[in-house]
Amino acid sequence: MSLTEELQHSIDTKTKPLGALGQLEEIALQIGLIQQTVQPVITDPQIVVFVADHGIAATGLVNPYPQAVTAQMVLNFLHGGAAINVFTRQHGIGLQVVDAGVNYDFESLRLHGNAFTNAKINYGTKNFLVEDAMKASETLQAIVKGNEIVQKLARQGCNCIGFGEMGIGNTSSASLIMSAITGIPVEVCTGRGTGTNDEQLQKKIATLQEVFLKHRLEQYADKPIDLLTKIGGFEIAMMTGAYLQAEQERMIIVVDGFIATAALLLATKCNELILKNCIFAHTSGEQGHEKMLQYLHAKPLLNLGMRLGEGTGAALAIPIIQSAVLFLNRMASFTSAQVDGIL
Amino acid sequence: MSLTEELQHSIDTKTKPLGALGQLEEIALQIGLIQQTVQPVITDPQIVVFVADHGIAATGLVNPYPQAVTAQMVLNFLHGGAAINVFTRQHGIGLQVVDAGVNYDFESLRLHGNAFTNAKINYGTKNFLVEDAMKASETLQAIVKGNEIVQKLARQGCNCIGFGEMGIGNTSSASLIMSAITGIPVEVCTGRGTGTNDEQLQKKIATLQEVFLKHRLEQYADKPIDLLTKIGGFEIAMMTGAYLQAEQERMIIVVDGFIATAALLLATKCNELILKNCIFAHTSGEQGHEKMLQYLHAKPLLNLGMRLGEGTGAALAIPIIQSAVLFLNRMASFTSAQVDGIL
Repeated sequence: MSLTEELQHSIDTKTKPLGALGQLEEIALQIGLIQQTVQPVITDPQIVVFVADHGIAATGLVNPYPQAVTAQMVLNFLHGGAAINVFTRQHGIGLQVVDAGVNYDFESLRLHGNAFTNAKINYGTKNFLVEDAMKASETLQAIVKGNEIVQKLARQGCNCIGFGEMGIGNTSSASLIMSAITGIPVEVCTGRGTGTNDEQLQKKIATLQEVFLKHRLEQYADKPIDLLTKIGGFEIAMMTGAYLQAEQERMIIVVDGFIATAALLLATKCNELILKNCIFAHTSGEQGHEKMLQYLHAKPLLNLGMRLGEGTGAALAIPIIQSAVLFLNRMASFTSAQVDGIL
Repeated sequence: MSLTEELQHSIDTKTKPLGALGQLEEIALQIGLIQQTVQPVITDPQIVVFVADHGIAATGLVNPYPQAVTAQMVLNFLHGGAAINVFTRQHGIGLQVVDAGVNYDFESLRLHGNAFTNAKINYGTKNFLVEDAMKASETLQAIVKGNEIVQKLARQGCNCIGFGEMGIGNTSSASLIMSAITGIPVEVCTGRGTGTNDEQLQKKIATLQEVFLKHRLEQYADKPIDLLTKIGGFEIAMMTGAYLQAEQERMIIVVDGFIATAALLLATKCNELILKNCIFAHTSGEQGHEKMLQYLHAKPLLNLGMRLGEGTGAALAIPIIQSAVLFLNRMASFTSAQVDGIL
């Protein structure tokens, strides 16, 4: 028997009707194949939250919150008060907060401990309405840093990872990435982000359409590095690098919401094999995410209308993924439990 | 401020965009109202699995597994090898297995411990193709027993409960209950259960249509006790009683799949206030469940194509419900975390 057949046989002989655990069965099979074993395990699951600022945010054209909130939320993460802190603590998931490019100097705060990583590429990106968001060298630096962060976690024993993000203005980058890669018009890819009203949404769409035209983004569907340089963010570039390394490390990759999926779109353009490692946590309430998921033929686990980022969808999905692994390892078979099969 | 306003204010001032936790926010509000507090807690969550046999199963007309599987699965539950064992252990949820009317004498096995309750009403129901499934006295006895079981758990400190079931043939009772109460035709309410093929499904539908006509079930839409007596099962009647008591105890009620929701339909006919306590765990893969949920205006948390029963959907949903309670209690507010609000 091939490994796929062995796994399917193990799933099918558990004390339950054929297929009765639905999507959990698909995930058990997928994880068995990722780990190349009939008895997969999840060890030291982690959420890494990449944080950065965006030049476009300072214009006030795309976001209702002030840019300062990005740095304030980093401190909230470090003090344990954000949603992702609550959910990772609930489930015993490790949490890493990475300054990928926040417009604030955290060094002066003398932060210690494993929870915070200073990987600052710069103090926020440039405003992509007038110039490229990043230098090409910065994009590459961010990707490499993302590689390194995941490599370190893999060496510590983590084999299941979810990526979150925070960065006022970053839905704008994500919408532009989505539009450039999928060919779906900007207005369909653009949502309310952290909560713009109707008028602000129209302004956001008009702004992003202008950016799309200015940079001629349709040229970059297959050039993820250039696309990041033009309109990306440091946290998105770093997350792209993190995805690529996670695949190299044979990790289970838990894909969060709109921005995390935009980074995954970029990563698939570098290595489409990455998708075999991906489990999609949820359909976000952010406009466009569902279409992004369709583009990737993804079948997310949850659909709770969440649109917070931070990796919160991934954190809520990890216990379900754990359930899939546990039923495969721990349920009795018809034979072992002496239960009769179908007549 | 009313309690509703206080809860909504607490939810809205957490460090996240308005509404960004989606359905978790609705659940936090609901649980606050159930417990009449701005700081709700979940204590000693439990899954109670009611198990019974069905006379119709012996005919072989509605189910592919032999009736003996019901008793065998009880032993599997008690040995910890079933899916519900795995998921309740994963999440620290208590598990109670109740013999509501299995066609097997467990007494001889000298079962001990809190996990098993002998509440046997009879050794399976009668075949409702030829006679009433239960005596009216048995129906009432089962309902009262369901009350008592929940009352005991409430006294032990449980305030969050999910009901599961096992019983070869019990999707047939559930389909008939659904059809009688909702007025939806039997063929739409009837699914494959534990896995009948196309031919068996047609036979099952024809059999249930015959039962519906024989007992003139359309008369019993508002007579849940009579309906149970005609075509119910001991586990479904006991679960109906359990729902009613759980509402009295102000418990959070986590509603599982097709059969558990059929029992809830019956309970709502006795007391429709029960719905304010209900959180719907998942949309089952069993045909008809989605329509049952629509009838109840329910918005389930999960949709993983699971159709196993045993309370497995409820077990997977409880951590999500716990997340809702935790964010309400533990997230920082904009003020406490010194994070700026909307501009």
